[in-house]
Amino acid sequence: MDAAEFRRRGKEMVDYVADYLENIEKRQVYPDVEPGYLRSLIPEEAPEEAESYEDVVKDIERVIMPGVTHWHSPYFYAYFPTANSFPAMLADMLCGAIGCIGFSWAASPACTELETVMLDWLGKMLKLPDDFLAGTEGRGGGVIQGTASEATLIALLAARSKIIKLIQADHPNQSETDIIPKLVAYSSDQAHSSVERAGLIGGVRMKKISTDKKFSVRGEALKKVLEEDRAAGLIPFFFCATLGTTPSCAFDCITELGPICNAEKIWMHIDAAYAGSAFICPEFRPLLNGIEFADSFNFNPHKWLLVNFDCSAMWVKKRSDIIGAFKMEPLYLKHDHQESGLVTDYRHWQIPLGRRFRSLKLWFVFRMYGLKGLQAYIRKHVGLAKEFESLVRADQRFEISADVVMGLVCFRLKGSNELNETLLKRINGARKIHLVPCQLAGKFVLRFAVCARTTESRHVQEAWCHISHLASELLQELPH
Amino acid sequence: MDAAEFRRRGKEMVDYVADYLENIEKRQVYPDVEPGYLRSLIPEEAPEEAESYEDVVKDIERVIMPGVTHWHSPYFYAYFPTANSFPAMLADMLCGAIGCIGFSWAASPACTELETVMLDWLGKMLKLPDDFLAGTEGRGGGVIQGTASEATLIALLAARSKIIKLIQADHPNQSETDIIPKLVAYSSDQAHSSVERAGLIGGVRMKKISTDKKFSVRGEALKKVLEEDRAAGLIPFFFCATLGTTPSCAFDCITELGPICNAEKIWMHIDAAYAGSAFICPEFRPLLNGIEFADSFNFNPHKWLLVNFDCSAMWVKKRSDIIGAFKMEPLYLKHDHQESGLVTDYRHWQIPLGRRFRSLKLWFVFRMYGLKGLQAYIRKHVGLAKEFESLVRADQRFEISADVVMGLVCFRLKGSNELNETLLKRINGARKIHLVPCQLAGKFVLRFAVCARTTESRHVQEAWCHISHLASELLQELPH
Repeated sequence: MDAAEFRRRGKEMVDYVADYLENIEKRQVYPDVEPGYLRSLIPEEAPEEAESYEDVVKDIERVIMPGVTHWHSPYFYAYFPTANSFPAMLADMLCGAIGCIGFSWAASPACTELETVMLDWLGKMLKLPDDFLAGTEGRGGGVIQGTASEATLIALLAARSKIIKLIQADHPNQSETDIIPKLVAYSSDQAHSSVERAGLIGGVRMKKISTDKKFSVRGEALKKVLEEDRAAGLIPFFFCATLGTTPSCAFDCITELGPICNAEKIWMHIDAAYAGSAFICPEFRPLLNGIEFADSFNFNPHKWLLVNFDCSAMWVKKRSDIIGAFKMEPLYLKHDHQESGLVTDYRHWQIPLGRRFRSLKLWFVFRMYGLKGLQAYIRKHVGLAKEFESLVRADQRFEISADVVMGLVCFRLKGSNELNETLLKRINGARKIHLVPCQLAGKFVLRFAVCARTTESRHVQEAWCHISHLASELLQELPH
Repeated sequence: MDAAEFRRRGKEMVDYVADYLENIEKRQVYPDVEPGYLRSLIPEEAPEEAESYEDVVKDIERVIMPGVTHWHSPYFYAYFPTANSFPAMLADMLCGAIGCIGFSWAASPACTELETVMLDWLGKMLKLPDDFLAGTEGRGGGVIQGTASEATLIALLAARSKIIKLIQADHPNQSETDIIPKLVAYSSDQAHSSVERAGLIGGVRMKKISTDKKFSVRGEALKKVLEEDRAAGLIPFFFCATLGTTPSCAFDCITELGPICNAEKIWMHIDAAYAGSAFICPEFRPLLNGIEFADSFNFNPHKWLLVNFDCSAMWVKKRSDIIGAFKMEPLYLKHDHQESGLVTDYRHWQIPLGRRFRSLKLWFVFRMYGLKGLQAYIRKHVGLAKEFESLVRADQRFEISADVVMGLVCFRLKGSNELNETLLKRINGARKIHLVPCQLAGKFVLRFAVCARTTESRHVQEAWCHISHLASELLQELPH
């Protein structure tokens, strides 16, 4: 395919993409295929000779679309949202064309510098403390990670490296392998599975702190565990707070937890993967109070800020902490500007070496929506969740299982877990909408997350009618 | 921006991308900007109100392009290539529109299943042993990782988990923290910095094995270190072999190393990040002989197989090894088909949770080029490297520093390291072409890697004329 054919095919693809997104609600949100469906639809081996583009494109509807879960359908209410916007897609096209691998400043200065400045823009939108901004002389700064899982892992590894150095400064004859077995990290019992996984990868003990009735970690709970662990000779070094947990969008009480972590020299990382986007609205910003105590902070613009996956924004107060944990300098990666204070080599900030020019997406989205447009988008989703909450509350058969603060509603039929499991099975089986469950205080709960950019009140109303109807059917079948 | 405007702007962007790539050689390959150049070109904060698309697009040439290192310019000979092709870009547009987050089969069955089948296609193109293929009943299979760094880390962590379980089976009272300090992993002293970094992250000792005159690890060298380490009470558990090292594209002797690793129950991972693509050509496939001894294998189609970054292909012989190391099953990620043998939940195979629909790129590229087209592409690059090698060899002032096997030529002026450092500085300073150095056996060496898809003989000839001219100037300045 030469450039001339790309011009033609690219424009066709733009229309296909626009058609797909304009008409997505006509497609069944969750597919009917059975595991293994795809293999029989295509050859067993790659073709020897080139095929025509027409042949490939025909297969999108034949092979791919029947097996797609349509995350951008306004009938998709599962997991958390993943962002999708036209400006971000345009930026991604440009990113693909430039195709630089920005592991160092020299590998493409624009790639590195736009990222640093965009993370400053975003940090200011969130009113992060200045410590987290790079500016021209800051000691902190931001970076785009692929996912929140990687941000948590990077924070944990940086904290591990920092505590080891700290202990070795006082006890030079203690080796890493003497220290690591004593280290202990903490998170909420509501924290995402990726936090526990970060502990596994880093080879450190990870303990879960019990949450209160609102599924939040409180200062007292952490304090108690810390005292026990110190008494047992363990070394607490890392606490991952969650703002907006995956099960119920609960918020750990960082104004209580932060001072404890600071006093105990425990690295506090804040994972606000989903909820973080909302902090650009003044009315939600108080939920981030306590950020001043954190060492690192992360949220995913690729969830709720209209920036296509992947784009997970992470900030640290001291970039030297994160760089110090991983720095490797082979000759083939050195460059002339290495030692200058203005230069950032992002490869030291992340697990992979290579990286795409993802800040273009932030730049396009921030400018094409403006701060006000982004705030309006967040508010619309929260409004839709509140609307759904009212519908649930108006129906005596149902209960709300957790405070509705953002775009997530946790609800269930009053009654047994089995009843709710059956209801969910029927909802997903009907294929009209798609939800996933969670477990809260031993109860099986349905999660209704407002996800798609194009979800409107009529979709939420329709979803509720559907759920309510299925619930009626189910309840009628029960013996009285 | 609504769908109608996206149709218009998307088509303009397609033309911009085509223009950029068609005319890329008119742009200076390496930018002139100084660190910090970008910040002053744009506002300090995101706009409150939305801006027009025209304003954003104008800034691409004003703000971004002056700071871009043009990796796809035929004058770019630095690092290793990063792939870029029109079919891959079209697939990426589709991937962005679908925008699913394929962490589990249910999160988008097509995303998971196309990946499994494409990795089988690719495995067959490389003539991998059947053990590595998923098929319908295989115990192995492939996965797309973001980068080779992640593949190495995943392999090391899986090996760590496996050896711990193995030891604990015999010694149930040994804890992880008893075992990890005794573990030792190995790689070539020529291995990529990411291998050492994987050891750091995994908290295990990592030793470098000396290489022979051709910069290859040989069986004897590994054997010797293993004996010493076993005698010292250490537990060897992981060896990362490199096929196509970053400094000089050297090949570890896996036919010697593999049987040793197998006999010693050491996990052998093969990192062929760059060179792996060439194994689709029968004449290069013998370099992969010994793969049958490996537990895991990885290479980057995003380097040399015309699939835009990121797309790093990894295969394992026993998927249970890799899944067992990381599996976490919170309720919100469970789905009905969880337990079926045909279902793959790729989140257990990787560090991040989320993942894009990257197999679309493989599918488009394999079909639009065909195996023959891809082989021709590899052969063309190797031919260009051989052409450059001949030019160097014909000039008595220069020497070739390592065998030229693929698209990389390591060369230097006969003389001191300082002389060669100055030559490289002048080459990069002149901004006509871009190279990076490496160190081989204490010598400062220039690397000439054929990178761009559009590099032709005339570019190589031009590059050599330029280098030769700068060398003449430099040598004339020296006192005799």
